[in-house]
Amino acid sequence: MRTLYVIGIGAGDPEHLTLAAISAMNRVDVFFTIDKGEQKSDLAGLRAELLARHVTRPHRVVTAADPPRDRRAAGYTDAVADWQGRREAVYADMIDTGLVDGESGGFLVWGDPALYDGTLRILERVAAVAPGTIEIVSIPGISSVQALAARHRLILNRIGSPFLVTTGRRLAAEGMPAAVDDVVVMLDAHHAFAALPDTDLDIFWGAYLGTPDEVLAHGDLQQVKDDIRRVWADCRERKGWIMDTYLLRRRR
Amino acid sequence: MRTLYVIGIGAGDPEHLTLAAISAMNRVDVFFTIDKGEQKSDLAGLRAELLARHVTRPHRVVTAADPPRDRRAAGYTDAVADWQGRREAVYADMIDTGLVDGESGGFLVWGDPALYDGTLRILERVAAVAPGTIEIVSIPGISSVQALAARHRLILNRIGSPFLVTTGRRLAAEGMPAAVDDVVVMLDAHHAFAALPDTDLDIFWGAYLGTPDEVLAHGDLQQVKDDIRRVWADCRERKGWIMDTYLLRRRR
Repeated sequence: MRTLYVIGIGAGDPEHLTLAAISAMNRVDVFFTIDKGEQKSDLAGLRAELLARHVTRPHRVVTAADPPRDRRAAGYTDAVADWQGRREAVYADMIDTGLVDGESGGFLVWGDPALYDGTLRILERVAAVAPGTIEIVSIPGISSVQALAARHRLILNRIGSPFLVTTGRRLAAEGMPAAVDDVVVMLDAHHAFAALPDTDLDIFWGAYLGTPDEVLAHGDLQQVKDDIRRVWADCRERKGWIMDTYLLRRRR
Repeated sequence: MRTLYVIGIGAGDPEHLTLAAISAMNRVDVFFTIDKGEQKSDLAGLRAELLARHVTRPHRVVTAADPPRDRRAAGYTDAVADWQGRREAVYADMIDTGLVDGESGGFLVWGDPALYDGTLRILERVAAVAPGTIEIVSIPGISSVQALAARHRLILNRIGSPFLVTTGRRLAAEGMPAAVDDVVVMLDAHHAFAALPDTDLDIFWGAYLGTPDEVLAHGDLQQVKDDIRRVWADCRERKGWIMDTYLLRRRR
């Protein structure tokens, strides 16, 4: 039997780490990481910092190259599924060669493993190949949505009301839903908010949440969208990558 | 200037606490708590345990009685707003009499302050009475939704898809939404899932998440709903209270 810990390490602030995450990190024999190239080396650096600060037992780190992903594919879901299939092969190989019976592996994931992260899905498929030999444990972490809410001192729901969590791609395709007044948007590579025609929305926006580079903005969407788009472009230019999250809130 | 920390302490597992929450707890001079009576004394006990385990500096604890809340009122939103108004008076009084200039107050809230918790809303109103004299800081915490997902090893969204977070009251009134296949339900006092006619839903259910009393169940909604309802009733009878959370997932 081998155990795989999928550990949420928070949105970027090393202080987001939970005590449960630290405990789990100290039960891991081998940490498995994927090298995403230099672009997101800030994130890789933080991961290394967390290991150095909190893991007190001997451990190994195994790194594999990320399989390429076609981000321009027409069918988004198919493209993601295809890429996850290739990553499954990488993970299966890392686990097979890196972990002996009785040992534990660890995957440190940004935010929460339950929120727009594919690691659990991929590992369930790896485990399904040899049923009963791999146990998977998921440890929740603070997500960028929660970091966004905290920095704006927001409550995501209004009294008795629902909220929707969706992607930039969906928002761009479908617009603001009529039936829900509060929408959290993640994975927005193309600032979909800026194309919305709605004149009754406030936006609460944040990028690099929890990190020293954190940027926040909020206001009437139509009034602030150009400013946010400018900040977005400047940040992306300067750092080479950007991750942002926002809440759209319909005024009542 | 006075600072109020609203600190998410997680869903019930003391290990849910983040390093940021522990840091914030150690900047607090006075912890403000509301006495909700004996019913939820498990929760009050855990709060006291967290203070004893993690707060190393001298501090005071001020407790007030919870203002009564009419849970049978016809207008839910009005009833909550009315009760929050009364709690606002209690909080304002506790802060005024308990906290001198330059001191920090702390509110330890279950789960995440951003998710179906009124503390931030109430404190913003308290602070608005004397602008510029009270600073509010929100510290995110692991919510019961995240604990539920972790225990079932779930990813809340499916690839590229949205999910909705709503209340039992809304689900009972409106049923399963047609446009969203994944719905997280909180604050369900009357197991609204059991009345749904849908035959294409799976449920992932949990109560007392993160605590020693944790109960989990999952399966085809129509096949498991009676079992869950029975467990629900047994638990409520035995402990005097129950808090449950669940995901409804439409099969594709």
